[in-house]
Amino acid sequence: MSSITYFAEIITIGNEILSGRTVNTNASHIARRLVSLGFSVRRITTVMDELDEISSAFREAISRKPKLIISTGGLGPTYDDKTAEGLSIALNRRFVENEKALEMIVEKYKKINVELTPERRKMAMMPEGAIPVENNEGIAPGIYIVYEGIEILATPGVPREMENVLENFINKYLKTRPPVKYVERNLTVVGVMESAIAPYISNLVKKYDLYIKSHPKGYELTSPMLEIQIAGSSANPKELEERINNCKEELKEIVHKLNGRITNEI
Amino acid sequence: MSSITYFAEIITIGNEILSGRTVNTNASHIARRLVSLGFSVRRITTVMDELDEISSAFREAISRKPKLIISTGGLGPTYDDKTAEGLSIALNRRFVENEKALEMIVEKYKKINVELTPERRKMAMMPEGAIPVENNEGIAPGIYIVYEGIEILATPGVPREMENVLENFINKYLKTRPPVKYVERNLTVVGVMESAIAPYISNLVKKYDLYIKSHPKGYELTSPMLEIQIAGSSANPKELEERINNCKEELKEIVHKLNGRITNEI
Repeated sequence: MSSITYFAEIITIGNEILSGRTVNTNASHIARRLVSLGFSVRRITTVMDELDEISSAFREAISRKPKLIISTGGLGPTYDDKTAEGLSIALNRRFVENEKALEMIVEKYKKINVELTPERRKMAMMPEGAIPVENNEGIAPGIYIVYEGIEILATPGVPREMENVLENFINKYLKTRPPVKYVERNLTVVGVMESAIAPYISNLVKKYDLYIKSHPKGYELTSPMLEIQIAGSSANPKELEERINNCKEELKEIVHKLNGRITNEI
Repeated sequence: MSSITYFAEIITIGNEILSGRTVNTNASHIARRLVSLGFSVRRITTVMDELDEISSAFREAISRKPKLIISTGGLGPTYDDKTAEGLSIALNRRFVENEKALEMIVEKYKKINVELTPERRKMAMMPEGAIPVENNEGIAPGIYIVYEGIEILATPGVPREMENVLENFINKYLKTRPPVKYVERNLTVVGVMESAIAPYISNLVKKYDLYIKSHPKGYELTSPMLEIQIAGSSANPKELEERINNCKEELKEIVHKLNGRITNEI
């Protein structure tokens, strides 16, 4: 390992993973995304929905001094959602109602005219000093906190919520950036169903060794719209730019072949 | 947690999991199989192909005193297969050539008339006192060792080899049996492709909450033969027998619907 390696760790929380009922695709997603930013993921730990287990997992990860810890699962309104409290215990911080998080939650329930029960209010409880991270796909905000120089983010376990909170975190909060060149391109595609382009994207991921993710924005069956994100990092900026451009051009050809249009390119 | 809970831990070793290139389906398989025997899987840890990481993962798992530790990955002929040595370090045992393992390996290469290179011979290196476990799907034997009352099994990372070594271990070596009723039934099915029955099996797994696994024995395209294993455990033997029988009867109906025959039933 070179001295410039920026290590990250992933913690997944959930009995359904430990019983084998659910395959841990969340960890794979987070890993790929962190690798695309230039991090090296050193460990993935899966623990039960229990306070002791959760706080131990965070404490042990912190003791190994990575730059970044991302958790997924255990944020939510039910009694077995214990990540926020487990994290508080690990950090030895008070477990308190976060005002900004409460605002986010209240606003969401107001919009759909649903009552704020104690269970729903519970999703605003966080370690003291935490920053709630926007969750545009669900209710429970992510939890961002910096502890002894380590950035820690807790995301929900529902895949699309986890992905959304993770992207919001990377765009708005993540301070630690590995000392490599990072390039990201985004294409907006209309007229192609996500399910139609999925196998092509899998091939491109393998061929170019990049993070490629389609984010559906329209309606899959009637008027599909996708934002496709291509990202990667490398110590060699020129090689990376070339690889990402080749990948983007190939993707554009695929879109045309599938009778779609590119309406935006960033 | 009740006092009769028998905890197990799973360790997966491999950079391809940590980079997100490979989804950790091996861990799910092992978890489901252990749960079917009545174990409770308390933690799944994924670490890099590095000696320090591997030995730490085993040492930490041992310190939590589960009844059983199963690892997968990092057994094999290449330089980055370091599980056997990492386990030796964790147990503070000498890393030695295991005579019985060497016999197994020599015999396999002899059969296909392939030379025994130092890389191939390396697969016989194990912690002192280990028992090699038969691998009928590949070369590298599994490694079984009892340490401070904890049963430890290291399996290869190739899924079909891992599954085979795990079954051989359960059938021949596993001493720790959770204090619940365990029932296993096996059906031999001819004339049905594994790919044809797969979706039905997925449904049955969900419906009956049992471990159901098809083991292909014939040739998928020309003369398919499957051994289908149904297993589960429960504190209530009567309920379990009934559940397994209902599942088996439903599976037999599916086999007939798919124009297959049951040639054996144990």
